[in-house]
Parts: sequence; C-alpha cells; structure tokens
Amino acid sequence: MNPMNRQIRLAQRPVGLPGPQCWQQTEEAVAQPQEGGVLLQTLALSLDPAMRGWMNEGKSYIPPVGIGEVMRAGGIGRVIASRNEAFPVGSLVSGGPGVQDYCLVPAEMIKRSGLTRIDPRMGSVSQWLNVLGMPGMTGYFGLMDVGQPKAGETLVVSGAAGAVGQTVGQLAKIKGCRVVGIAGGAAKCEWVVKELGFDACIDYKSGTVKDGLKQHCPDGVDIYFDNVGGEILDTVLMRINRKARIIICGAISQYNNTSAVQGPKNYLSLLVNRARMEGIVVFDYAPRYGEAVAEMATYLKDGRMKSREDVVRGTVADFPATLLKLFNGENFGKLVLQLAD
Amino acid sequence: MNPMNRQIRLAQRPVGLPGPQCWQQTEEAVAQPQEGGVLLQTLALSLDPAMRGWMNEGKSYIPPVGIGEVMRAGGIGRVIASRNEAFPVGSLVSGGPGVQDYCLVPAEMIKRSGLTRIDPRMGSVSQWLNVLGMPGMTGYFGLMDVGQPKAGETLVVSGAAGAVGQTVGQLAKIKGCRVVGIAGGAAKCEWVVKELGFDACIDYKSGTVKDGLKQHCPDGVDIYFDNVGGEILDTVLMRINRKARIIICGAISQYNNTSAVQGPKNYLSLLVNRARMEGIVVFDYAPRYGEAVAEMATYLKDGRMKSREDVVRGTVADFPATLLKLFNGENFGKLVLQLAD
Repeated sequence: MNPMNRQIRLAQRPVGLPGPQCWQQTEEAVAQPQEGGVLLQTLALSLDPAMRGWMNEGKSYIPPVGIGEVMRAGGIGRVIASRNEAFPVGSLVSGGPGVQDYCLVPAEMIKRSGLTRIDPRMGSVSQWLNVLGMPGMTGYFGLMDVGQPKAGETLVVSGAAGAVGQTVGQLAKIKGCRVVGIAGGAAKCEWVVKELGFDACIDYKSGTVKDGLKQHCPDGVDIYFDNVGGEILDTVLMRINRKARIIICGAISQYNNTSAVQGPKNYLSLLVNRARMEGIVVFDYAPRYGEAVAEMATYLKDGRMKSREDVVRGTVADFPATLLKLFNGENFGKLVLQLAD
Repeated sequence: MNPMNRQIRLAQRPVGLPGPQCWQQTEEAVAQPQEGGVLLQTLALSLDPAMRGWMNEGKSYIPPVGIGEVMRAGGIGRVIASRNEAFPVGSLVSGGPGVQDYCLVPAEMIKRSGLTRIDPRMGSVSQWLNVLGMPGMTGYFGLMDVGQPKAGETLVVSGAAGAVGQTVGQLAKIKGCRVVGIAGGAAKCEWVVKELGFDACIDYKSGTVKDGLKQHCPDGVDIYFDNVGGEILDTVLMRINRKARIIICGAISQYNNTSAVQGPKNYLSLLVNRARMEGIVVFDYAPRYGEAVAEMATYLKDGRMKSREDVVRGTVADFPATLLKLFNGENFGKLVLQLAD
C-alpha cells in the first residue's frame, strides 16, 4: 500500500502576518514515478522570509503560489522510488519539494525545479539548507557580485544571526573586511561576535542602531547587506561612505505590512555619496551554485565558516506556526522544519 | 576708479522655498588681482536645482554656503584684469563666480575653482552653461557611466525639458535608445518631442505618469534618469525591467520639503528586478569634462543635439526671484541669469 502524503496548501492570501486561516491541510495517496521521474520523501524544509512574498498576488521574481496549491518550499529529500538513473533510490537531493511529506517529480520537472544531488560529506542536511543552500548562495553572490568586498572595507549586515546574515558576515571576514552585524537580542549578538567572529554586533532591541553604527563603524560603511529594510536601512544610509554598495536582499520588517512599504527617506544619500543600491535574486546564479558550494564547503571543513540552524522537528502540520518564528525574530539561525531523519 | 561689485549673500537658511528673507545684497569695491590671479566680470550665471541643497546646513557632497557668504553659482565670465598668462584679458572662462558682478580669483583658487577657458566657437555663452556645462556633463556622465545605455533599450528621463533632461534624452537617442520624457505642460512636452526628437513625452500635469508609461514604454523601462524624485520615481519603479539602472541625479520635488523626504516606497522593485539605483555627482568627472565637451560640441555642430536656454536678463538683484522659477517648473530649458553681454 502506498503511504499517504500530507500537504499544506495555500487556502487564502494573507493580510499582514499569515495566520492559520491561510492554510489548509490535505492528504492524498502517493503516486509512483513515470519514466524519467523520481519520488522523494521530504526530510527537511527550508523556511525563508521570501515565502511571505510568494504568498502575495502580483508580479514578482517568480509567480505567486496559487490558491489551493501546495505551498512552495525548498528542502532536502531522499529518493525513495526512481525511474531516472541520475537519481538512484537512496540518494539525497536538494530541490523544491513544497510543504508535503512526499514529492513526485516528473521527468520534465527535474531540471526546471533545480533538483540536484547533494553530497552529505560536504555538509549535514541542515547545512545544505543553510550555508550550502539557498541562503548561503544568496549571501555568497550578493556579497561577491554586488557588494564586491575589498580587504579593509567595513561591511554591515542586518539579520546577522539569520541564514543569509551569518553567511555574509563570515564570508566578508574571510575576504578581509571589518564586519558589523545587526541582530535582535543579546544572545544573538553575542553568538555572532564570539562564535562567528564578527567584529561587533548591534542589538537593535537595546539602544539605537544609530549609536551602534557610530561606535562600531568609525570609518563609515562601505557595504551594507540589507535583509530587513525599514528604519534600519534608513539609519545605515546616513553612515555610508562614498561609492558604498547596498545589497537589497530582503526587507523582512516590511513583509507583513498592511499599509505601504516604508521607502528609504534617506535614499538621497546615494546621490551625496555616489553610492549604489542594487537588488539580488539568488535564482539568477543557479549555473554558478557549484563553484560557490565548493568554496563554502572548504570553509566549513577548515572551520573558518560556522553555521547554526534552528531545527524544528515536526510534521507538515507544524509549518504554519513555525513560519511565524521568522517574522517575530524568534528563530536563531537558519530555520528548518525537519520531517524525517 | 574701480567699479563697484554687487553681491547676493546668503542671509539665512531657508525653510521650504527660499524666500527674500534668505538673501542680502551687498556692494563693495572691486580689488585688483595679485600675482597669478585674475579678475572676472560675470557675464551669465547658471541657476540650478542643486543650489537649493547648497543652502542647507549639514554634510553633503560639497560644504554648504555659509551664512553671510556670497551665494555659490557656476557661470561664465570675461577676464578683465589678469596677472596669469593662462587667462589673458578678454578671454572667456567657465567657473564658479558666485552671484556677483565681479569675481576676484586668487592664484591658489584658479585650479581649485575649476576655472577653465572656453571656446566660443564650440557654443554660445548660454550653451556653455547648458549642454557644454555642468548640466550637460551631469547628463553625459550620468547616462554613459551609470546608465550604460545599449541600443534598443528604453530610457525615461524626468525634468525632460530642463538642462540635464534635454541632454540626457538627446544623447540617449544618439546612442540608439527609445527615449520617453516626463515634463510639466503641453508646451514643454511638444518641444521635447518635435524639436529634440524624443519618442514621446508624458505631461505629468495632465493625466497620470502611470498611464503615460504604460502607453509609451510597452517594453518597460531599462534606464530611468531621475531629476525629480517623489511620486514619479515611485511610479517609474513599478515599470522597470530586469537589470534596470536608475540614475539618481536629483529630486527637485523634495528639495523644498519642510517634512522628511519621501522615500521610494516601491524600492523593493530593485530586488524583484535585480535593478540598480545609483547616485551621481558631476564634480567627480571633472578630469573627463574635456572628452565629453568635445563629443557634445560635435553633436551641437552637426545638429543632432539642440539646446534651449531660458535666459533672464537682469542684475544680481534678480537672482532670488529667478531662482524660484526652477521650483515652480516655470523655466523652460536651462535657466540662465545674464548680467552682461
């Protein structure tokens, strides 16, 4: 008898924080793969701020999740049935299984969904969702391609204890930058400095970011990697140096707004400082993930890069509540929902 | 007997529009140049939106004009006394005479103030303040260095009938772009299309910019050269293409705000579209003005580039009222205050 596949589907589009009314749990029998396809069991799901954007209607960098569709999610799966030689039964893969226990990937979707075998010797399943996964790739290419760090420059990264932030800060340290994080709470700030080796971390929940920047960035800010938007973006804009680069990776402070997004009222600092603000979408770099993963894996191995995941063990039914941890800043490190071992 | 030099000095910093209370007229005897210096008679002054920023206190790309100082202004002068062989009596020069009839430039300020002889065969005095002057250089380097136009791309420029706008649009046409202007009023829009050869011009005073962009930029916007900020910037942000470049040259809609600058609430379009917003300050390009002037002069000569100046004839006493024409959009073309022939 085939196992049953539990799924979390988008029931309605959220206004503000995505509450329980946005979700519907369904269950259906698992089908077997046709020629060229594979069947995955989902081991772990990546929970990302970007998911909030995917739930909105309207034009974005990828189409929104449709009402009634299984919620989109990146994750790691194990091949449990295969009619594709490239993905033998038992192999581990990275891809976009969605919020469900099992995912049938037909032949024509293998490439389109970016299904890739992963090497567990390079990193754990949760690391493959963190430093070696989408957040790590986002941090890597955002920093290297848009930020173009030079040794001796000062980099500031918000959401410093998050998945992208931890990658960006550690990578910038490796590249010779002075690195200052911004995070919420003493525990995160302490971890970022003591464990990850950032030069400083500003706790936006105690004291002001303005004072923190003044203290910890005496020579101004050359690169700002922005994951949060809002007031913090505006505050950093007042401290940027000439020819500064601001990487717009996300704006988690604004995703659940029920009114308009708060635009950076200090954007004319870009003019005064001949600075640049540029957006990044990680999917553009898919052809180059391999080089980045190889580089990052060496840092993980030699200890120059550490990673922290906030792993919640549960079932797909735990997805709605777990997702909310991202938006109240409760997660500490990359948020992962682990469904199976 | 030496002539008397009338001067307009900054009496107090403006709140909102710079009214008459901001200015003080003084008069003093003209001194003669010392070794290495020159004495200029001001022929024409360049009136620019940037002047509003120079009147504010605080850090910017150049220091503010001090209270009691002669108001800073670019302009064209004639050398009427000289102890510097490079600037013989009678020669025409471009520089920053300030709002006064005469300007004594001591030896040590010749280079620092960017004093340069101009060739009247390349363009008229007012053209040397327009296409061949600071606005032209701003348009040239902003478009070429930051905008990096490619043939077939769509460029939108606001303040299209202004000094920078007319340069940018015509240059982008020469480089093979589809060019759509945004200007205020039917007369300006008609001139921009019929005389300057833009593909279209949107009148923001009649109808909406949103509808205009939809109609005239069916393939989206690849380059937006922004002189105005505010709502128009936000509207264009909603129409940009992937990898679009937004040149932040100015924000005239915001300069006289008495509340905070309006930040672009649609700035996350930079993320969705992997686009870039970058500021430009023309002075950075001073070492390359020569190449740009030479190129622009050929376009003026062969008729591919036209220029329009709004020349007000008067005395320095007319400066305060004339400046306000910029902020109510009354000027049509580059605003020049001509003091002498």
